[in-house]
Amino acid sequence: MYIPTLDDMLAAHVRIKPYIHRTPVLTSSFLNELTGAELFFKCENFQKAGAFKVRGASNAVFGLPDGMLEKGVATHSSGNHALSLSYAAGRRGIPCTVVMPRTAPQAKKDAVIGYGGKIVECEPSTSSREEVFAQVVTETGAEFVHPYNDPRVIAGQGTCARELIEQVENLDAVMAPIGGGGMISGTCLTLSNLAPNVKIYAAEPEQADDAARSFKAGHIIADDAPVTVADGLKVPLKELTWHFVSNYVSDILTTSEQEIIDAMKLIWKRMKIVVEPSSAVPLAAILKNKETFAGKRIGVIITGGNVDLDLLPWLKTEK
Amino acid sequence: MYIPTLDDMLAAHVRIKPYIHRTPVLTSSFLNELTGAELFFKCENFQKAGAFKVRGASNAVFGLPDGMLEKGVATHSSGNHALSLSYAAGRRGIPCTVVMPRTAPQAKKDAVIGYGGKIVECEPSTSSREEVFAQVVTETGAEFVHPYNDPRVIAGQGTCARELIEQVENLDAVMAPIGGGGMISGTCLTLSNLAPNVKIYAAEPEQADDAARSFKAGHIIADDAPVTVADGLKVPLKELTWHFVSNYVSDILTTSEQEIIDAMKLIWKRMKIVVEPSSAVPLAAILKNKETFAGKRIGVIITGGNVDLDLLPWLKTEK
Repeated sequence: MYIPTLDDMLAAHVRIKPYIHRTPVLTSSFLNELTGAELFFKCENFQKAGAFKVRGASNAVFGLPDGMLEKGVATHSSGNHALSLSYAAGRRGIPCTVVMPRTAPQAKKDAVIGYGGKIVECEPSTSSREEVFAQVVTETGAEFVHPYNDPRVIAGQGTCARELIEQVENLDAVMAPIGGGGMISGTCLTLSNLAPNVKIYAAEPEQADDAARSFKAGHIIADDAPVTVADGLKVPLKELTWHFVSNYVSDILTTSEQEIIDAMKLIWKRMKIVVEPSSAVPLAAILKNKETFAGKRIGVIITGGNVDLDLLPWLKTEK
Repeated sequence: MYIPTLDDMLAAHVRIKPYIHRTPVLTSSFLNELTGAELFFKCENFQKAGAFKVRGASNAVFGLPDGMLEKGVATHSSGNHALSLSYAAGRRGIPCTVVMPRTAPQAKKDAVIGYGGKIVECEPSTSSREEVFAQVVTETGAEFVHPYNDPRVIAGQGTCARELIEQVENLDAVMAPIGGGGMISGTCLTLSNLAPNVKIYAAEPEQADDAARSFKAGHIIADDAPVTVADGLKVPLKELTWHFVSNYVSDILTTSEQEIIDAMKLIWKRMKIVVEPSSAVPLAAILKNKETFAGKRIGVIITGGNVDLDLLPWLKTEK
């Protein structure tokens, strides 16, 4: 297992800079008053392809040696990684194949195709996905870029925390949502090297709390198909992300579905930005644990803004 | 009739700077490709109280002489001016009374009260509003701050265009929505003095096109209670705003309700920002008149982001 280093992150940043945004950091005096903390929101919802995932995907794609370009890249994802890898491959002009469950939202499929990716559908089960994906790799010879358990991807995600500590001085902590752990691992990689006094917190839905239970147990616990509104956070930790989580994270805080939806709506209403449910989990966790964060300067990573505007969770729950 | 001058706008900017945000300018490569123009969105949805109106309201409130502070300010509005005047008065610590129709949305009433304003309700008719408002002014002796037909307000709104031309060089045109004409008048005030080569366009809903008809007729035409999703744009021009519109505006473009809703959803989806329907009218007009704007650098004023998240127009129309 190769563990990415500070140099990998720094090289990633140079490599991907032409293809990503240096996203802004927003603040809200209302949310500061409400939480008693000073919050600095790193807005990856404004990122290319609408999510931080384009950092890691671009690093993998633009780091490919020339000899591997013709066969392109492949992945399995029904979410932001699928969009991001398609975007990055499109920018480099190489093929990208994405295995997606046939039940994935049409909007996500359209977005992948819009960026130039090719979709191969599988049944919505792990066994079908693995079977179809193996076949795709055999046929195309494409390079597999895992959504998070990949040193190139983690090094890419680490560039987000690097920008954040350049944009905001004297942070006490950084919080990001945790699913597979790619963003948190990149954050750990960067902060443990460049700002070791900044604490790292992860936030997770109670209904998909495998990372929190792993953290307490001291080994990876994976759940089969958890159900949560924060659809980016359903996947389990893997060995590489577990390395970072187990070594550098201070705590993993969990929140209920209603707390996530309320925090999401609060961000939309008061900050006037569109964020996806996963992005609201950290604010929900801060609101639930005010005493832990009062008086502190907290960087909050808004991971993405790809949400179905026809299916907003606070409207669904009210129906 | 006193017509505000460049010096009034410059003095307003000094006066209000501590109480407003210098809002960011966002761009979208997707929308640039779609329109064939280069669009620069001045994001007043991120402004204090969620709309540009706080500029003019703050200028009126912080320009009040000491002898008038005790009696405070008053206005009639069920929209962003009510919130903005309450916010500004709250910051200065003076009373603010707002006459609102009893049928106004509870969220707007709550926001006024949240900022420290006092609401006096009237019936939802012009006659009741005028009667109740006259009574309020008699009883309180408060200074009336009109939502737009007021030189202090127009000078304050003009600070937005000043920031925009500082933030973006070599604009060919600026476009803003038009209702009563306060933002457009402030834009005319600033650009006619500081950037006279920049054309000024106004955008208006077809269903509330009194400004466009006034512009063609050469005199003010006022409609009684037009119906449009762009609820900030229902009010008519008045003599002071007509002065600026008739002298400095290049054209007033109109768009259908569906075009406004589509443009609004497009902004939310691709730019990840929450904007109110009025703010989407300029983009709708640019999409409808591509040939006029192709290849041009256009400043687009996003006027506000105060929208009821439980009643989104694309969901209403689909029901």
